[in-house]
Amino acid sequence: MNEFRILEIKQSVFENNDREAEKLRGELKARGVFLLNLMSSPGAGKTTTLRGTVKRLKNEFAIGVMEADIDSDVDAKAIQETGVKVIQLHTGGMCHLDAGMTRQGLEGLGLEDIDVAILENVGNLVCPAEFDTGASKNAMILSVPEGDDKPLKYPLMFTICDAVLVNKTDVLPYFDFDMNAVRERIRKLNPDAKVIPICARTGEGLDEWTQWLREEITAWRNR
Amino acid sequence: MNEFRILEIKQSVFENNDREAEKLRGELKARGVFLLNLMSSPGAGKTTTLRGTVKRLKNEFAIGVMEADIDSDVDAKAIQETGVKVIQLHTGGMCHLDAGMTRQGLEGLGLEDIDVAILENVGNLVCPAEFDTGASKNAMILSVPEGDDKPLKYPLMFTICDAVLVNKTDVLPYFDFDMNAVRERIRKLNPDAKVIPICARTGEGLDEWTQWLREEITAWRNR
Repeated sequence: MNEFRILEIKQSVFENNDREAEKLRGELKARGVFLLNLMSSPGAGKTTTLRGTVKRLKNEFAIGVMEADIDSDVDAKAIQETGVKVIQLHTGGMCHLDAGMTRQGLEGLGLEDIDVAILENVGNLVCPAEFDTGASKNAMILSVPEGDDKPLKYPLMFTICDAVLVNKTDVLPYFDFDMNAVRERIRKLNPDAKVIPICARTGEGLDEWTQWLREEITAWRNR
Repeated sequence: MNEFRILEIKQSVFENNDREAEKLRGELKARGVFLLNLMSSPGAGKTTTLRGTVKRLKNEFAIGVMEADIDSDVDAKAIQETGVKVIQLHTGGMCHLDAGMTRQGLEGLGLEDIDVAILENVGNLVCPAEFDTGASKNAMILSVPEGDDKPLKYPLMFTICDAVLVNKTDVLPYFDFDMNAVRERIRKLNPDAKVIPICARTGEGLDEWTQWLREEITAWRNR
């Protein structure tokens, strides 16, 4: 029994995505709505991280989640259990969301009772990095099993993110993953990025992450 | 010191990729060249798997590898150490290769002394599934840490692959991953797909995988 709405997202008609993204960001700012764009590879832990994030912030902010899941409703169901507003965006196999598609999602979600909207973007380290969604902040998750070379191989994604969560730290003993090397590789691409090791499954690091997010939301809404 | 060639791949000019792919496949068939298209998420283990594959087959076939790596030469270096011919394809941040781009890569590699060409596609479960490269066979790697729900979320990729390698079985004890559920989910999408659990790091399962590949190569070249 699904109680969340499913929205079929159409291709955007706008030629200039950057302009549309700036316009959307300005409108959200004027309404006091913070939009987080969360990106990662498939299986890096976006949904589990979101569950932990929503649980920690839902008593302070009215949160709405947009799941741009490709062909299942597993993630939307998992988020729905936290009790916040959820909408599922059916993207018809598209590899990213742009600002026009994000706007359709926000309209479907309904912003009248929302302080913070979170977009769980399509699992992909390439295409979503190329399309500004209009988000207030971009965050990504790199999971330990993916390897510490990912900033070298997908530099654009690491360059455009304000925060990089390094997830699944519980399995660090079983992988050849150098956290210091990752930090240094991210720093070279993007010196201002906040890098936070987390384990979404156990909750490790989620307090630090949600404190960062809380400050960014508050600054955005009060500016 | 890099001794492999780096080729800048241009956008394809062909409108009908499926037709170009069929044409390329026919030309390769006529020359007796088998082309494997290997796909996965970022960090699933394509390069390590390829190293193990090449080591097991290089005394039987003349192998050439095309690394469609996005912004580093880490993978090409790792393959080069096996002693086979390697070329690096610079895709300028593109999210997939189509048949026209694969043709450029094959021309850069040079097919005169090659029996088996292997394309390590861009790390992405979405876009590469939508573009036929002209390969004789498609294979993908799903790694245990990505989760057993991936066939539900990226069904097209699982549908178009002839073989699915389930990698990193050494960390099965640390993840909630149901191998039987994965097999069943793949079977529903693609009953003919060969599913092989492997651990590229330790070599587990690579003999079974290379035996499958050996038979496919031989059948292709003798048909």
